[in-house]
Amino acid sequence: MSGSMPAPGSALSAEEIASFVGGELMGSASGSFRSVAAVDSASQDEVVFFRSGLDQRGATPKPELLDAVLACSAGLLVVDAGFPEAKRAMVRVENPGLAAARLQQHWHGRDFPIAVGVHPTAQVDLSAEVAASASIAAGVVVGADCVIGEGVHLHPGVVLYPRVHLGEGCTVHANTVLGSPGFGYVWDGQQHQPMPQMGGVRIGRGVEIGANSVIDAGTMAPTVIGDGCILDNFVQVGHNCSLGRAVVLCAQVGLSGSTILEDGVVMGGQSGSGGHLRVGTGTQIAARGGATADIGPGLVVSGVPAVDIRLHHRMQAALRRLAKGRKS
Amino acid sequence: MSGSMPAPGSALSAEEIASFVGGELMGSASGSFRSVAAVDSASQDEVVFFRSGLDQRGATPKPELLDAVLACSAGLLVVDAGFPEAKRAMVRVENPGLAAARLQQHWHGRDFPIAVGVHPTAQVDLSAEVAASASIAAGVVVGADCVIGEGVHLHPGVVLYPRVHLGEGCTVHANTVLGSPGFGYVWDGQQHQPMPQMGGVRIGRGVEIGANSVIDAGTMAPTVIGDGCILDNFVQVGHNCSLGRAVVLCAQVGLSGSTILEDGVVMGGQSGSGGHLRVGTGTQIAARGGATADIGPGLVVSGVPAVDIRLHHRMQAALRRLAKGRKS
Amino acid sequence: MSGSMPAPGSALSAEEIASFVGGELMGSASGSFRSVAAVDSASQDEVVFFRSGLDQRGATPKPELLDAVLACSAGLLVVDAGFPEAKRAMVRVENPGLAAARLQQHWHGRDFPIAVGVHPTAQVDLSAEVAASASIAAGVVVGADCVIGEGVHLHPGVVLYPRVHLGEGCTVHANTVLGSPGFGYVWDGQQHQPMPQMGGVRIGRGVEIGANSVIDAGTMAPTVIGDGCILDNFVQVGHNCSLGRAVVLCAQVGLSGSTILEDGVVMGGQSGSGGHLRVGTGTQIAARGGATADIGPGLVVSGVPAVDIRLHHRMQAALRRLAKGRKS
Repeated sequence: MSGSMPAPGSALSAEEIASFVGGELMGSASGSFRSVAAVDSASQDEVVFFRSGLDQRGATPKPELLDAVLACSAGLLVVDAGFPEAKRAMVRVENPGLAAARLQQHWHGRDFPIAVGVHPTAQVDLSAEVAASASIAAGVVVGADCVIGEGVHLHPGVVLYPRVHLGEGCTVHANTVLGSPGFGYVWDGQQHQPMPQMGGVRIGRGVEIGANSVIDAGTMAPTVIGDGCILDNFVQVGHNCSLGRAVVLCAQVGLSGSTILEDGVVMGGQSGSGGHLRVGTGTQIAARGGATADIGPGLVVSGVPAVDIRLHHRMQAALRRLAKGRKS
Repeated sequence: MSGSMPAPGSALSAEEIASFVGGELMGSASGSFRSVAAVDSASQDEVVFFRSGLDQRGATPKPELLDAVLACSAGLLVVDAGFPEAKRAMVRVENPGLAAARLQQHWHGRDFPIAVGVHPTAQVDLSAEVAASASIAAGVVVGADCVIGEGVHLHPGVVLYPRVHLGEGCTVHANTVLGSPGFGYVWDGQQHQPMPQMGGVRIGRGVEIGANSVIDAGTMAPTVIGDGCILDNFVQVGHNCSLGRAVVLCAQVGLSGSTILEDGVVMGGQSGSGGHLRVGTGTQIAARGGATADIGPGLVVSGVPAVDIRLHHRMQAALRRLAKGRKS
Repeated sequence: MSGSMPAPGSALSAEEIASFVGGELMGSASGSFRSVAAVDSASQDEVVFFRSGLDQRGATPKPELLDAVLACSAGLLVVDAGFPEAKRAMVRVENPGLAAARLQQHWHGRDFPIAVGVHPTAQVDLSAEVAASASIAAGVVVGADCVIGEGVHLHPGVVLYPRVHLGEGCTVHANTVLGSPGFGYVWDGQQHQPMPQMGGVRIGRGVEIGANSVIDAGTMAPTVIGDGCILDNFVQVGHNCSLGRAVVLCAQVGLSGSTILEDGVVMGGQSGSGGHLRVGTGTQIAARGGATADIGPGLVVSGVPAVDIRLHHRMQAALRRLAKGRKS
């Protein structure tokens, strides 16, 4: 990114866009732009972005998609180096998706707006510390001894039990619950006696948590979420878990108690972990996978129990052949 | 359905019931009726319904269940053509379950009552359009630029982010979140940059959504839910999904982003879809199944990855034989 | 437990702790104690507990953990008979975990505190019966004809639809929904007609329900949860289910309609049941397992469909061998 920063939300010329995203403007575009748009609905004052190279799944875009981009009504394209030359104004950048994200953050903000301060219907315990720039929406409850950092967004209906710390710049979406007591009981011969869960939750900086998720309080020490983690909706983090930096948990992931995820771990939708285990740095667990024991760093695993994804695919193929009565 | 419509909630005579459900009254029943009831708790002024034919699972009811119906204290039975003749007042209809649903809707309403209008504890953005006949319960939040159709019910704690459109007659149950930002991030080399999700959600007419569910906003264009879809509790619909008419999503289903479900698709409990795929009209995905690629119309699939359910069963059987050491 | 009961929350001497938990004090410890703590953060006025025998998973603790306990700064240890003799003050008990749970309940209470009575932002229907000692937190909604027993805790954002009965001493955590209509529809040829769900929910005594869970109302008769059941977060209980005493449902479990779980059934995280089936007394379904038919009492099952866990492990092993090209 280069050049002086334009005022948030301001319309940008093609030259300003090229400067803002650190790209090269090809051709010329008059007027100014106010949003990124979808290919089939873009108008003259909007931008369409397109990556011609491999996507995150390793697939190339379909040719008809390229044709649609070339024919669309957007006034400016943001594309990568592999995009064909065309008689259209375009900005070439290394990563069009990242450029589009930054442009949209400029035009629309990183998050849906919430008024700074505490909404009159929110309930904040007197012992909680809330930074002046935090935004606490309608119906939010903040329990005793919580600490809410600068610029935090708590969306409607979020409930913080006691002793939840949220670092600066965190966002928590609607109806998510943080710091609820972990699921710890001891059978006394007649009934399940709850072990009080006193450890709270400690969340780093810039963490984003989706809607209707739950992070349980630790038993003695806090459940920990590292800086820059992103958690989708319906994510369950059991008590005493510890997540490193920039961990990604997709929707409906469930972590049993005392799971340790090192930096950069990625868990696909509906995957899970048994408790008391560690997943190494950067390892990816495919959707629906279930970790049942420690997993090393840098791996891609799938299935339940989660194994190397190539072995998992061979297992599936072998089973299919077996069912069809073929010998090999 | 034939005859003039009785006043909602009114007690009905056996003749009025036969007329209301389009059935034939056999025998005579004095007095009037005010509810459908369970076999073991029904009283003289209540109705019991029973289907003697195959149920949705293709199973016939157990003989002792038939005996219990014949012996129950209900003043009237609603049964199908295959039900044996008996010295009891009964109304014969093609579909006793449907008749019972309509009777219960008459007596008790389609949904739990909520007062028409906006509850004083609800927060509705000034830019939202709310139809006069809509019912908005305690603690509901309606964000900017939402549109709420006639007769919509929003139960307590529902949160609508900006740009959610709900067609007439929709019901959304407690603590469900609509229009939360989809889970879209781009790695910038240091952290996950959120792609703002500006597309909102567009929901057709007569859609019913369970409790604690989430439908995420689309990135540029809306996430779409077609007319008459029914979604159970804990359903996750990712950004940019598109559902046709009368789709059924059971509890804990998760749809990854950009999933397309055509009309009448049925997904069983805890099933899911990978993103960027299409499931054809009327296809059924069994409970716990996971769609990982496009699936054609009119199929019944199971397993992960989801395959034809007969193949899936053969795979399970083959694996069991293998584990038990049998050759075939 | 023996001796007179100390005042709740009071600091306890080593002798009082031994008496309170019914254990034997070895060595002497001056001063008094105010909490159980984690091994690595304990201080002189805190207690550390440790079980040297097999844990619930049948594993023995790692030797370095024992060393850490022996070296920790706690003023008192609570340990079992197998713990080695040491020059430290310790209380020997049969079950150190249970002793610790009771001590923590004494010092910190069984649950996070909520003020007795109805919070001014809660909405309680006039027809509901609420016991004088019940605690109803901010934003809770209690529907018509509900009955709330003595000592019940309803945490923020809990929604009770009509006809939910909660026995004495129940705790329901934030944003959980009870009594929402079960997912029952009948296709009328054009659309899904809802069958009104009138049966409500009946919950016994001492039941604990986690955050963001849902228990649906029964169709004609109530959905039933027996005394002393413990349900974690994100648990889905479909309509007409019936749970016996002291059932354990871990996070993200889903029960389809009309599931019957007898006393003491345990279901691991993300497991589920198809509907209209029965699981016998004390049976355990492993995490991610799926019950698809009746299961007898006293079993341990795993997989989908759930089978004896030893068979399940053999199936997994056989498949792995097959994929690796080995014959047996």
